Amino acid sequence: MNSFGRIFRLSIFGESHGPAVGITIDGCPPGLSLGAADFETDLKRRQGGAGIGTTPRKEADEPQFLSGLFNGFTTGAPLTIMFPNGNTRPGDYEKQRAVPRPGHADFVATQRYGGFEDYRGGGHFSGRLTVCLVAAGVVAKLLLPDISIDSRITQLGGLPDAEAGLARAIELKDSVGGIVECRVRGLKAGLGEPFWDSLESVLAHAVFAIPAVRGIEFGTGFAAAAMTGSAHNDSITDGAGTTGSNNAGGINGGLSNGNELVFRIAIKPTSSTPKEQRSYNRETGAIESFAVRGRHDLAIALRVPPVLEAVTAVVLADFALLRSAQSGGFL
Amino acid sequence: MNSFGRIFRLSIFGESHGPAVGITIDGCPPGLSLGAADFETDLKRRQGGAGIGTTPRKEADEPQFLSGLFNGFTTGAPLTIMFPNGNTRPGDYEKQRAVPRPGHADFVATQRYGGFEDYRGGGHFSGRLTVCLVAAGVVAKLLLPDISIDSRITQLGGLPDAEAGLARAIELKDSVGGIVECRVRGLKAGLGEPFWDSLESVLAHAVFAIPAVRGIEFGTGFAAAAMTGSAHNDSITDGAGTTGSNNAGGINGGLSNGNELVFRIAIKPTSSTPKEQRSYNRETGAIESFAVRGRHDLAIALRVPPVLEAVTAVVLADFALLRSAQSGGFL
Amino acid sequence: MNSFGRIFRLSIFGESHGPAVGITIDGCPPGLSLGAADFETDLKRRQGGAGIGTTPRKEADEPQFLSGLFNGFTTGAPLTIMFPNGNTRPGDYEKQRAVPRPGHADFVATQRYGGFEDYRGGGHFSGRLTVCLVAAGVVAKLLLPDISIDSRITQLGGLPDAEAGLARAIELKDSVGGIVECRVRGLKAGLGEPFWDSLESVLAHAVFAIPAVRGIEFGTGFAAAAMTGSAHNDSITDGAGTTGSNNAGGINGGLSNGNELVFRIAIKPTSSTPKEQRSYNRETGAIESFAVRGRHDLAIALRVPPVLEAVTAVVLADFALLRSAQSGGFL
Amino acid sequence: MNSFGRIFRLSIFGESHGPAVGITIDGCPPGLSLGAADFETDLKRRQGGAGIGTTPRKEADEPQFLSGLFNGFTTGAPLTIMFPNGNTRPGDYEKQRAVPRPGHADFVATQRYGGFEDYRGGGHFSGRLTVCLVAAGVVAKLLLPDISIDSRITQLGGLPDAEAGLARAIELKDSVGGIVECRVRGLKAGLGEPFWDSLESVLAHAVFAIPAVRGIEFGTGFAAAAMTGSAHNDSITDGAGTTGSNNAGGINGGLSNGNELVFRIAIKPTSSTPKEQRSYNRETGAIESFAVRGRHDLAIALRVPPVLEAVTAVVLADFALLRSAQSGGFL
Repeated sequence: MNSFGRIFRLSIFGESHGPAVGITIDGCPPGLSLGAADFETDLKRRQGGAGIGTTPRKEADEPQFLSGLFNGFTTGAPLTIMFPNGNTRPGDYEKQRAVPRPGHADFVATQRYGGFEDYRGGGHFSGRLTVCLVAAGVVAKLLLPDISIDSRITQLGGLPDAEAGLARAIELKDSVGGIVECRVRGLKAGLGEPFWDSLESVLAHAVFAIPAVRGIEFGTGFAAAAMTGSAHNDSITDGAGTTGSNNAGGINGGLSNGNELVFRIAIKPTSSTPKEQRSYNRETGAIESFAVRGRHDLAIALRVPPVLEAVTAVVLADFALLRSAQSGGFL
Repeated sequence: MNSFGRIFRLSIFGESHGPAVGITIDGCPPGLSLGAADFETDLKRRQGGAGIGTTPRKEADEPQFLSGLFNGFTTGAPLTIMFPNGNTRPGDYEKQRAVPRPGHADFVATQRYGGFEDYRGGGHFSGRLTVCLVAAGVVAKLLLPDISIDSRITQLGGLPDAEAGLARAIELKDSVGGIVECRVRGLKAGLGEPFWDSLESVLAHAVFAIPAVRGIEFGTGFAAAAMTGSAHNDSITDGAGTTGSNNAGGINGGLSNGNELVFRIAIKPTSSTPKEQRSYNRETGAIESFAVRGRHDLAIALRVPPVLEAVTAVVLADFALLRSAQSGGFL
Repeated sequence: MNSFGRIFRLSIFGESHGPAVGITIDGCPPGLSLGAADFETDLKRRQGGAGIGTTPRKEADEPQFLSGLFNGFTTGAPLTIMFPNGNTRPGDYEKQRAVPRPGHADFVATQRYGGFEDYRGGGHFSGRLTVCLVAAGVVAKLLLPDISIDSRITQLGGLPDAEAGLARAIELKDSVGGIVECRVRGLKAGLGEPFWDSLESVLAHAVFAIPAVRGIEFGTGFAAAAMTGSAHNDSITDGAGTTGSNNAGGINGGLSNGNELVFRIAIKPTSSTPKEQRSYNRETGAIESFAVRGRHDLAIALRVPPVLEAVTAVVLADFALLRSAQSGGFL
Repeated sequence: MNSFGRIFRLSIFGESHGPAVGITIDGCPPGLSLGAADFETDLKRRQGGAGIGTTPRKEADEPQFLSGLFNGFTTGAPLTIMFPNGNTRPGDYEKQRAVPRPGHADFVATQRYGGFEDYRGGGHFSGRLTVCLVAAGVVAKLLLPDISIDSRITQLGGLPDAEAGLARAIELKDSVGGIVECRVRGLKAGLGEPFWDSLESVLAHAVFAIPAVRGIEFGTGFAAAAMTGSAHNDSITDGAGTTGSNNAGGINGGLSNGNELVFRIAIKPTSSTPKEQRSYNRETGAIESFAVRGRHDLAIALRVPPVLEAVTAVVLADFALLRSAQSGGFL
């Protein structure tokens, strides 16, 4: 599905080289002050800086509000935000098509869509659509005024220092992966739903919609596997549920416990690497050498933090609205 | 929510010390041969062996079919499978209640449910409910006759050898965590849905419903973060999409690519450890020492493989039915 | 689907002659005082009186709470209520099966479920499942303390007087239909969701789940088709939105407008009539005479009011919780 | 919600006087040949003819495809179709606002959205959005090549002859209501889902999203209430389930039975009538006379048939895809 959420519901659409990408937010409460300027910071962060190792495709990324906004406020009707695609280059996609790029969705897309998929620049599978996630996050954060959500690179190209990691990628002339950590402060206890819709479940669901994510872990995560229970359990120290350590990453039983929410995601090296690779030519049946043309991001992880914050905000906003439902304020 | 899935839909209910736990499967096709005997193997695997370091609570775990089964076949109507709870001991839960157990859902449950939650033995948060997951998996696997799903412990108590890991836990008199890997063979290419409902997204969503899961990674997972693109990309070697390496773990662009599906999950050490711990007493306001009474599993990860296989089967069955929808066979 | 609702979610299961019918309510707030006694009145109303023209199958209809109830209060976890089936008679269903009963689901069920359906007494299509609706309504009404929901027969067997209508059915020795009206007082303005989930849409959706319903109309309904706009429009007379007339039946633009909610449903004569009928014998290929054995209700409409009130309560409770979500009380 | 459907899923957005209205279709299979020309006939039918008694607002209604279409075929990715709004006149909406128009959503919208709603021309509640329904219907019908769906006016202004009904409205200088009947031929038996998602339930749900609908009835509908069972039951005459009469309107037990599907809907007289009316002025607190400015449709029912056919197609396409899912063709 291209929709997500129960109250604060998102529907995403678009392709990399089609007329536009966009998102419709259904269930957004009325009365939120909103304008194009509110999107600037996060959209710019997502674009990444200009420099060696980053893609030269820079979109204007000016949000166009098709519906749901009136006199500078959300109306409560579906809010549709569209980003027209510019800066697309026709390119020789037909030729490239015979040789599905390793690590990309090219091959599976053709299997799935019978060859009718828009294959230009990855089509609907393109990272271009994350601009819509960032836009949704801007709106979601308006619903979370007392909550701070911050992401940062904790590892790039195998190095804890992101700049050094990028330098290594440039030196290697190869793409590199990374790890991004997200921390949320100010979350009340009790957010999340029982059983299937635990806080971890829904966050993980949303996070894996970000291209190139290969893993997610909460709190101590995979390291917890080698710990003992007595070392891992976080002692509760007061009536507010404050814990001494935070190995749980702020979640017990699938619900926020009032401490800081902490999780990390693994980003694989982007499949578009300048290195020559080999793949199967569907037309000739031969294995042939292959090089991704054009310049691409060598360290896509650098652009992930604002996207990760955005999907986190979207999930938390939906949970907060759900929780309000159960408080029964209207009854 | 306590429901999950789009076509093959599950609704789960029950508490550890209530009359029963159970699951309703809606959307299960008619005509599947099914009986209590089909559940035996997986239910037994979930119970774990008898021995030092395992819980002495052993339920009969005899499935009772309340609906949806007639003359030994599924009918197409909702299939409700109930497991009555036996072997519950009243215990002194009231006293325990004042001191929320570290690492458990006790504290957050009270925050969330205002004290009305069934707190006996973890209530609805209990691992007891995984018996329902295993039951659903048995049914789901009937829809996947050509697919094999196998899970195994790859690390326990910090050791690659599970027996050694358990021995260490017994020696330490402390609970330990572990890592469980799942491999699926026979999956066609093209399973998964675009954007939000990628194969990783929905698997992760389901997997985090299993208690004690702290992380999930696909293919090379977190290790991918330190790899280069040229090393990570899997070269396609034939028209069926077979790849040389399988760093992607069988998924590209959120869709199965026809290779083996591989993912791993991290299990934290179970919160119930024999070691003395400290927690906050809600009634006295004091920090006090605390010990979990009774015998509990020291290495809960040992019981996870059949549960992990079950949720994997449930997710894949739903995706396969969805894919059939789009093939339009009825049109 | 056998599930319904967005926050207050119902999953229904069971067959007429299986072990039990039941319902799971997910999303029910904790802290509602609830016990078997709360169900008595409505369950009894649904059973209808004892007498000529009514079915002799009378179930005990004692609710069994499998989960979600603890110490006399809802816990916030899924509330599963089961009604074991008693009073089933094995009967000669096999023989009857060759001749699908006119007006029943027999024929379509076999088409749909390939012959695997539980055909005894209508199976999952049986009116027996309405006991679950009534049970859900009892819970839903706890969420609507200031709202009254009342249904009454306005026509039976073509006569405005229900007793006379039943007398006519007995005299004709044939089943008869009827019209049931529902009125809801105390509803605040603004309940309902935009576009697809208008108050009419969701009420109609739920109402058509009641067996034998053939139509629904709001306010002036079908009579509105012959009215003029100036006669039909309800003048607003004060700031609370009170209208002089109530042709709209309490709904504008799909949302409650604060006036009385009024709608009517048409119930067809139940298909089980003592009269001899003709149908096709699947085995012999012949058209043959056919008579429904046993005594059945001649005027099933008499038993509809509590069921109609229940589904109305369920819909309104869900909308009220949704509306609370949007009020953002938790934020 | 502004989304509808389970496999063939619609998300609708837009306001009468905003930049555009539009619809995203998620789950549309790839490979359907589609272009602007395919929409012409139905969009033109929806606009109604030019003449006395019809609105002079005529939009170009040229579909713009934002996504999901490539080289003249659907891609399988979300298909977003946008209709820019032209022909909007600023008008003196502020002044009008103090006096909520009787029969319109003005009052409830303010109650619901706290005054933040786009009130110009009805905003999101406008009939303008039905252009999106018609567009979705065009796509849905591509999935139903062997099925014909036809709607016609059976009553207008209280007269069976639509032209006479319109003439009466013009003579009365008042708006009038009508009844529209829909017939579907070629439907296989077994479409519809058990319990909540019966064919009637989902059709009714969708139909009530069309503005001005006040009732729906299937087969004999409300007339069934006065019939006897022996007269109402349709005798099955052959192994294909053909019935002699069709009082059931092609549905038994919530599933299509293979006969013609027949249902009717009641359209109220549009609230915008040239007649002077009275309403409450929120600012002055006085009841004042009120006249809807501009020319409007006197008989909006005339424009309903293509919209009714469209929502019917949308519902049937979704059910057909669901049915395909259960056939398990991909397994």
